[in-house]
Amino acid sequence: MAPLPGATLTDRQRIAWLRLLRSDNVGPATFRQLLNRFASAEAALDALPGLLRRTGKALRITSQSEAEDEIAGLARYGARLVASGEPGYPDLLNHIPAAPPLLTLATGPNLDWQRTVGIVGARNASAAGIKMTRQLAGDLGDRGYTVVSGLARGIDTAAHRATLATGTVAVLAGGFDQIYPSENIPLAHDILDQGGALVTEMPLGWEPRARDFPRRNRLVSGLSLGIVVVEAAKRSGSLITARLALEQNRDVFAVPGSPLDPRAEGGNALIQQGARLVTCAQDIIDTLGSADPSRNALFDRDWEPDLVPESPPPTDDDKSRLLAALGPTAVDVDELLRQTGLTASAMQMLLLELDLAGQIEWSSGQLVALRY
Amino acid sequence: MAPLPGATLTDRQRIAWLRLLRSDNVGPATFRQLLNRFASAEAALDALPGLLRRTGKALRITSQSEAEDEIAGLARYGARLVASGEPGYPDLLNHIPAAPPLLTLATGPNLDWQRTVGIVGARNASAAGIKMTRQLAGDLGDRGYTVVSGLARGIDTAAHRATLATGTVAVLAGGFDQIYPSENIPLAHDILDQGGALVTEMPLGWEPRARDFPRRNRLVSGLSLGIVVVEAAKRSGSLITARLALEQNRDVFAVPGSPLDPRAEGGNALIQQGARLVTCAQDIIDTLGSADPSRNALFDRDWEPDLVPESPPPTDDDKSRLLAALGPTAVDVDELLRQTGLTASAMQMLLLELDLAGQIEWSSGQLVALRY
Repeated sequence: MAPLPGATLTDRQRIAWLRLLRSDNVGPATFRQLLNRFASAEAALDALPGLLRRTGKALRITSQSEAEDEIAGLARYGARLVASGEPGYPDLLNHIPAAPPLLTLATGPNLDWQRTVGIVGARNASAAGIKMTRQLAGDLGDRGYTVVSGLARGIDTAAHRATLATGTVAVLAGGFDQIYPSENIPLAHDILDQGGALVTEMPLGWEPRARDFPRRNRLVSGLSLGIVVVEAAKRSGSLITARLALEQNRDVFAVPGSPLDPRAEGGNALIQQGARLVTCAQDIIDTLGSADPSRNALFDRDWEPDLVPESPPPTDDDKSRLLAALGPTAVDVDELLRQTGLTASAMQMLLLELDLAGQIEWSSGQLVALRY
Repeated sequence: MAPLPGATLTDRQRIAWLRLLRSDNVGPATFRQLLNRFASAEAALDALPGLLRRTGKALRITSQSEAEDEIAGLARYGARLVASGEPGYPDLLNHIPAAPPLLTLATGPNLDWQRTVGIVGARNASAAGIKMTRQLAGDLGDRGYTVVSGLARGIDTAAHRATLATGTVAVLAGGFDQIYPSENIPLAHDILDQGGALVTEMPLGWEPRARDFPRRNRLVSGLSLGIVVVEAAKRSGSLITARLALEQNRDVFAVPGSPLDPRAEGGNALIQQGARLVTCAQDIIDTLGSADPSRNALFDRDWEPDLVPESPPPTDDDKSRLLAALGPTAVDVDELLRQTGLTASAMQMLLLELDLAGQIEWSSGQLVALRY
């Protein structure tokens, strides 16, 4: 995915990236598919009206002025858009599936984005949970780690507060101007004032809805070397974060608790499933310090767009064959090519079309399934 | 070690076993060495005065009438002595290092000694720890498991009480008539009245001292397929039991707790070291149910005495050579034979002599070290 590492987008490119990314049904995975197909956001924008027409749905493309307005609006908040691959884009994020192509970011200049630990837990945390979080986060901060969390009530708030002086990153579920919960607006200001960072992938003005929180959680873990679950009930957002962290090849830590305490159920279950039991910051540092450096090999990126030779546009018959081959189980694109006999070019166009129509779902970049 | 499995000792043999075992400086390991050397307890008793003279210490041999008195005394308490290998000797105990050659036992007829779980923990247990123990033990009992513990205050007491109706085994640190703590004498009666068991390897009349408790703990774990630590501070007796259980190839389970609770430190540390975190009886049953049956191969016993050809008695020079070869690190007897050039017979006699003099220590039956 352009730009090349270390290069920066021109203003014109940045606006094209933003327009493409903010258009209906274009998420990070689709954005990547479009760039693979058309080599640049500008070329993809040119092709998008035709693609959207073929979906048969009324889908909107973000206009030039809307994109310019967002950039100007962010500047008033002291925030900017950073593209994947640009200097300032957190490197750890480059290594997760569906990394945000553009990140909205406001950050102090000296924040360490490499030595990071995410701390997540219950919003209705107990006094003991809050105390534990303060201890863990404070000690991690004192030992040079940046603490990442989600600015929620309870554990998140305690984690940020304990690390205001040493460096903390809050990942928002909504737009940069939509701090949630509103009682934490002063905390968000404190974070920025003391050299920490606020981060989001959502558009300016976006009010967070329930489904945006798991999406945000993948950035909390994605920005962290490992995440710590302090108090989490069964089926809680913190457990989703833990699962996402594992998928991202991050270490997962959990603070144990009495089986009689419902707020300990999630953490205890994580430990039974292989998360490391932690009682103090040293437990975390020991594990992260000994992390296999070869793990970074997993993170190698492919910066070249995946250009395929042009061929005649796919027919309705081609589309029927592809739909017949797809199902609820994710399959590899190569397998689909073999089964349908489609050309790579036709396959790519059809998948883009189905993706924009919201009919398919990508996982791990190369596996695709029908969405039900 | 005689008798052969399934056979029973004659009264005369049982008295000889008891006299030998109760004589000064004869523990389970030395008892086994003596039987290996002399093939029967009666022959060993005949040789013992000569051996003890050579130690240069004033060591007593238990008399015939003392042994008879103990057996008669035990009968008044409804207890009896069961020898390793006899029917009624708990089979799991046959598979631990330094298993008691004779066990004092009073038991109901229907107790299951094969499906057993040990539960240990703090004497100064919290209300939550007691509640947790009641739940775990009660559920294990309902699922057909016999619960083994040490009749101590706190967790042990809760474990026994919760399983009076389903079957419980209390292992004593002192003699059968020396229930400790005395407040648990009624509980001991309840256990027997409801078909449970009391067990000890200590002589009738023996008042338990501090060092007898770790020794007792090895029987709690030895009688159990796995042990559960409910609340344990750092450096507590429960952690000793957990270590002994691992040496005995038993499963170790621990109930987690908040890192802010000092009574959770031991359990949390055990989990960090590999013990299985448990929150309910099912967690234990799942693990024990899937225990590798081939593990029993580790438990194969050698019933044949290790007779070696007679040779001239060892000289003082032989003894000096052996002492020079011994050190604080346990070494294999075969290695000692190579290094000293002694005959197997001379080696065996010298080791017995040093053992009876309290100068050496056996581990794992075949490794020997100087005692300091």
